[in-house]
Amino acid sequence: MKVTRRDLIAGAAGAVALARTAGAQTPADPTKVRGTPPRALGDRASTARVQRIVRGQVVSSTPLHDLMGIITPSDLHFERHHGGVPAIAPETYSLLIHGMVERPTIFTLADLKRFPSHSQIHFLECSGNLGRTAGPETTPGMLAGLTSTSEWTGVRLSTLLGEVGVRSGARWLLAEGADAAVLTRSVPIEKALDDALVAYGQNGEALRPEQGYPARLFLPGWEGNASVKWLRRLEVSDQPFMTREETSKYTEPFANGTSRQFSFRMDARSLITAPAFPNRLERGWVEITGIAWTGAGRITRVDISTDGGATWAAARLQEPVLPLAHTRFRHMWQWNGGEAVLMSRAVDETGYMQPTKAELLAQRGPGTATYHLNPITGWVVQPDGRVVYKEESWA
Amino acid sequence: MKVTRRDLIAGAAGAVALARTAGAQTPADPTKVRGTPPRALGDRASTARVQRIVRGQVVSSTPLHDLMGIITPSDLHFERHHGGVPAIAPETYSLLIHGMVERPTIFTLADLKRFPSHSQIHFLECSGNLGRTAGPETTPGMLAGLTSTSEWTGVRLSTLLGEVGVRSGARWLLAEGADAAVLTRSVPIEKALDDALVAYGQNGEALRPEQGYPARLFLPGWEGNASVKWLRRLEVSDQPFMTREETSKYTEPFANGTSRQFSFRMDARSLITAPAFPNRLERGWVEITGIAWTGAGRITRVDISTDGGATWAAARLQEPVLPLAHTRFRHMWQWNGGEAVLMSRAVDETGYMQPTKAELLAQRGPGTATYHLNPITGWVVQPDGRVVYKEESWA
Repeated sequence: MKVTRRDLIAGAAGAVALARTAGAQTPADPTKVRGTPPRALGDRASTARVQRIVRGQVVSSTPLHDLMGIITPSDLHFERHHGGVPAIAPETYSLLIHGMVERPTIFTLADLKRFPSHSQIHFLECSGNLGRTAGPETTPGMLAGLTSTSEWTGVRLSTLLGEVGVRSGARWLLAEGADAAVLTRSVPIEKALDDALVAYGQNGEALRPEQGYPARLFLPGWEGNASVKWLRRLEVSDQPFMTREETSKYTEPFANGTSRQFSFRMDARSLITAPAFPNRLERGWVEITGIAWTGAGRITRVDISTDGGATWAAARLQEPVLPLAHTRFRHMWQWNGGEAVLMSRAVDETGYMQPTKAELLAQRGPGTATYHLNPITGWVVQPDGRVVYKEESWA
Repeated sequence: MKVTRRDLIAGAAGAVALARTAGAQTPADPTKVRGTPPRALGDRASTARVQRIVRGQVVSSTPLHDLMGIITPSDLHFERHHGGVPAIAPETYSLLIHGMVERPTIFTLADLKRFPSHSQIHFLECSGNLGRTAGPETTPGMLAGLTSTSEWTGVRLSTLLGEVGVRSGARWLLAEGADAAVLTRSVPIEKALDDALVAYGQNGEALRPEQGYPARLFLPGWEGNASVKWLRRLEVSDQPFMTREETSKYTEPFANGTSRQFSFRMDARSLITAPAFPNRLERGWVEITGIAWTGAGRITRVDISTDGGATWAAARLQEPVLPLAHTRFRHMWQWNGGEAVLMSRAVDETGYMQPTKAELLAQRGPGTATYHLNPITGWVVQPDGRVVYKEESWA
């Protein structure tokens, strides 16, 4: 793929930054110049800078079109918060577990770290992960960059609930954050006792501040909003708490006039990350690649269409295919210069297939959907090689 | 585990840094203050800084004792170079493949990226990964931090060799780097045609400069030195090239007076990363955790001893257990206040068991070994809770 004008501008800016900050320039023959010594902390090459896409005061997206594996570097993990990122000192952090429990308990961060720990590679996706009025010049990250994959480490919530002793009749937990929004969500006890973590680690280190440092709830495969960050309180109850974030928000209207509440699980989805805007193709073999994921377990197949959905072929899935994690797919395609529409669709281990926009709208009703939109999306390859988003309006 | 004086000093320094750079301080009640907005690039919490251990002009080690999963963040991946880190412009990068081939070819970076790509999660370890004169106050990272795990992306070398057409009789390749050392190594054709990559990606992004940006050789499971960084030339031949890095260096003397050359594969090893120096234990349950890895495939078992090797118990291995990747192990242990010596030993899928120091020395001979040292190592828990390295001299 050719570099775009945007790439060139970014590259030139990077070169200037290198000259300014490191006092260095790229030598004509690098074997004739001693290189730079080791450093306590590495950095990206000045010619390979990437960054999140910041939108307003509460969102930044992962630049999926710049990434090529399944792990998202922590400084590029998407962020979504409702009151900014709070600063919390780890030595004053505490988590209260109370309500329908035998022994209400306050856990310090050190307490949490003394329990058996678990690490799991999982995606985390915001349930509102679709650019609803995207135009042709939309990158994959702009379209659907509110999903990222990390290795999460923490203590199983089931272990903590075993410590405090859940009373019979308990059905739900309230999870409360220590941010300025005091974000609260209700979580079914079944999920809490299954694979939920109170996570303090991300990609081998402490959580990043925007990911809930010092500790967060992590509910594998479920909408990100329910994995409450900066977790300070869990209250056990016999019913859900009907918080703002699960009544006025994070519910989905249906075509028949009803709404779906507590739709936690993220359905199977896929996204071609290259070629996509702003790539420009040259004729010949092109690798079509992207990511697929599902809250229902493992991805079992990703199909690729290069003719707008008329015909499909199975892509190659990168091993290992991990449950509840981004799965990379790849497919070689020969482009001979005509217009083409590239699409992908994911199938998961339950047999669920990612729907078309028409199928989604038939279920949800037109014009109102905001959350849990996982339609098949497409990229148009124009005869001149430019690739643009196949515009779809959901507004 | 209690924090140490060192931790407190680091924490105080972090707090000062926070106040200076962000103009922010930790509020008494974070729910009463709007937090910071999203940012294009995230950063660690000021109270959770970690960094590599820099030694001299050619080495920095991964702080294994600060990490808790299997993925090493790219800016903490160990570095080892022989002439500093060169600055190479991606648009001028090229890789020449020549020698016993039908079509000698120069590949640009864009050329490499047009071939089918592969991503693989693998460890990379320097063959000289043992602090040979470590004292009691040695951290896991100081002792053996020249190993890290990343998701590597690139094109299979077998694909490139298919393009250029390897002639019959070819047995070896010379790999040459574009750094000031012009580092060269011989690689058997079997490895080149098996799982070798010409890698341009690390943890989803471009390689870091100190890892060979724009592209490097990557030989899964083999000593790091052979995975030549800043790769600029591959010459196919019918015999090895007997370079400096495989004659005067990177060979191991044996007890019988002979030396072993071309000992590429890294043998199974494990290392307890906590508790270790500088941790201080409190009585009660303690999680013993660390990493194990092998160049022979998968780790099948890690045994833990808390009595200096007299008795052993199998640790829990974190899923997924990936071939040729760090595998995290965990084991709960109740410490009641006496002196204890903690050890781990790895077993891999070939049945190979990590040796004791005595077993290694019987094979290699005393006083001379530098490379491929993978002995069982230990940490002494003192009655006051301090943990120190169980000193072993290899000098």
